[in-house]
Amino acid sequence: MVKRSGKRFLQAVGEFGFIRMIHRSFPARDRSILLGIGDDAAVLKPRPGRLLLLTVDTLREGVHFSRFREDPFSIGWKAAAVSASDIAAMGGIPRWLLMSLALPETVEEAGVRGMLDGMKALLKQYSISLIGGNVSRSKEGVSIDTTLIGEGTPGALLTRGGARAGDLVYVTGTLGDSAAGLEVLERNRKTRGGEAPRPRRPAGLIRRHLRPEPRVEEGRWLSRSGIATAAIDVSDGLLRDLGHLCEESRVGARIDAKSLPLSPELKGSAPLLRRPLLEYAAGGGEDYELLFTVSPRNQKPLEALGRRRKFSWTRIGVIVRKEERIALVDESGRPLKMESPGFDHFRRSSK
Amino acid sequence: MVKRSGKRFLQAVGEFGFIRMIHRSFPARDRSILLGIGDDAAVLKPRPGRLLLLTVDTLREGVHFSRFREDPFSIGWKAAAVSASDIAAMGGIPRWLLMSLALPETVEEAGVRGMLDGMKALLKQYSISLIGGNVSRSKEGVSIDTTLIGEGTPGALLTRGGARAGDLVYVTGTLGDSAAGLEVLERNRKTRGGEAPRPRRPAGLIRRHLRPEPRVEEGRWLSRSGIATAAIDVSDGLLRDLGHLCEESRVGARIDAKSLPLSPELKGSAPLLRRPLLEYAAGGGEDYELLFTVSPRNQKPLEALGRRRKFSWTRIGVIVRKEERIALVDESGRPLKMESPGFDHFRRSSK
Repeated sequence: MVKRSGKRFLQAVGEFGFIRMIHRSFPARDRSILLGIGDDAAVLKPRPGRLLLLTVDTLREGVHFSRFREDPFSIGWKAAAVSASDIAAMGGIPRWLLMSLALPETVEEAGVRGMLDGMKALLKQYSISLIGGNVSRSKEGVSIDTTLIGEGTPGALLTRGGARAGDLVYVTGTLGDSAAGLEVLERNRKTRGGEAPRPRRPAGLIRRHLRPEPRVEEGRWLSRSGIATAAIDVSDGLLRDLGHLCEESRVGARIDAKSLPLSPELKGSAPLLRRPLLEYAAGGGEDYELLFTVSPRNQKPLEALGRRRKFSWTRIGVIVRKEERIALVDESGRPLKMESPGFDHFRRSSK
Repeated sequence: MVKRSGKRFLQAVGEFGFIRMIHRSFPARDRSILLGIGDDAAVLKPRPGRLLLLTVDTLREGVHFSRFREDPFSIGWKAAAVSASDIAAMGGIPRWLLMSLALPETVEEAGVRGMLDGMKALLKQYSISLIGGNVSRSKEGVSIDTTLIGEGTPGALLTRGGARAGDLVYVTGTLGDSAAGLEVLERNRKTRGGEAPRPRRPAGLIRRHLRPEPRVEEGRWLSRSGIATAAIDVSDGLLRDLGHLCEESRVGARIDAKSLPLSPELKGSAPLLRRPLLEYAAGGGEDYELLFTVSPRNQKPLEALGRRRKFSWTRIGVIVRKEERIALVDESGRPLKMESPGFDHFRRSSK
């Protein structure tokens, strides 16, 4: 997205011209928005009786993405998608986005427009309005900080803290695709000597990494039905996010390695990948699936709901007492050791 | 705040240990917070009938601050203060803060703690709760993105769009101190060869730059009384922010240069400063005063309100028709030319 010479797009339009450009391309179509972009603050009139859910995320060049690896459209899409996934994990509806954008002075116009287009596509698909933000110069790469505000219903929230020993552990979709996709992207980048790939139709695994789909519908139905006892989205890796859920619920968990849902693409790519598939599924981050727990008596209602709404979710284990901690076990119940238990921003145990 | 070698604080505590540390040092004391730091999203139960005001700001090392110029406490204070100033400019009450923090791996523990202490002090003074955020690695400097949510009352909001020709233009406090303080800081830095100043009691001008005080009380009274027709906070510089207000209101303005309120410290520092005082007052940014307009028939009620609440505000000009644009005039009404009309992040016409 950045080139070192050539026409300086941002200097030509200026900070306020750029804000006007964003304002024009993100119309607010929501009656609860009394004032959007253009004043000191946005003004919302929340619907009576609803709760507000608020989450913040960041995508930073050189940390979360690279200009030689991701295309601008995907970066914009993902910046908003990861926040929508947090709202989904609470059982809420994502509604309003604030964006803080930092751009190097040398950024290319096409890159910025592509990024805004990607964000716009995600917002349109999930009926989210951009209501405000901030633009600033950056000394180094592009960074996008998003604050997403969602609505929830009292008594129908999914938190991390409600799992009880005996509850069944489920996950939506498939696991490990994103981490495997990232590895493929990295390899492509090295093979091509740093040229940006910008694929129009990224293959399955790569697409899962570049354009995650937040599980908003699943989260809403799980919360409204009252079936799930706890939930979290899989952003840092299954075992690590399960660890967060277990910590807040003060429980342990036993996960059956064999049951982890793997996509046909991931299975088919096994010969190309550096590590065993289980490591992508259990340790790889950024799947943005929902990990949730259900009381055993609700197993049938959950399966009925899944069939009715065409949701895909898989039972992968059981919640146990805190003392038993978290174990990933093989078919005979023996604990498996993992090389990479997930992502920590400052320890970098994986990724 | 960053050193290149030595003990790596962040690697020692890890991402999640660091989040727990923040969680412990920022207790949520507000009954509207159903869930604060620690889940996928924070959960608020807004008070019925109130409006929500939302604003985002960023402070970035190398762009907004320098580790050789500002002390960590001031950086934390200012990161939240500039957002509170936006809420003040809408006539709202700042309530809940989300923080996205990006830190280089080499950051010093003392710097991070100092920064959090400064933010905590600002939040305490204005009864704002930290309800969530995000921490991430940064490839280069420290950056702090803040989203502040405030409450407002329907029918009592200050926007940029309500000024009419004939309205009087007022500003709170004094202008130009912050820009002059920044110049003094810069000079100190160069004289001392890059050593961080970390003054315990920065002198007046420097303090205005480091620890701005958002005009929350003034904004509330101006909005509740219904006296102000439009308002904005002075962050980019008087003339530029007046430009934003006039653009939204579709009017022009004539500002009397002689009437701009200058602090005794600024006047006393004239011999030390590089440019005429008027340039700091009219063009310098980051004063975080409120610039507002008042119908002439409300001049007396405004002055009475100022005396009663001990608010300091000064009449500096008048709103005119759009065709007359914005003019800074001398005592005989002649337009003055300005070298630096304010701050643009991508054009850098000043600062």
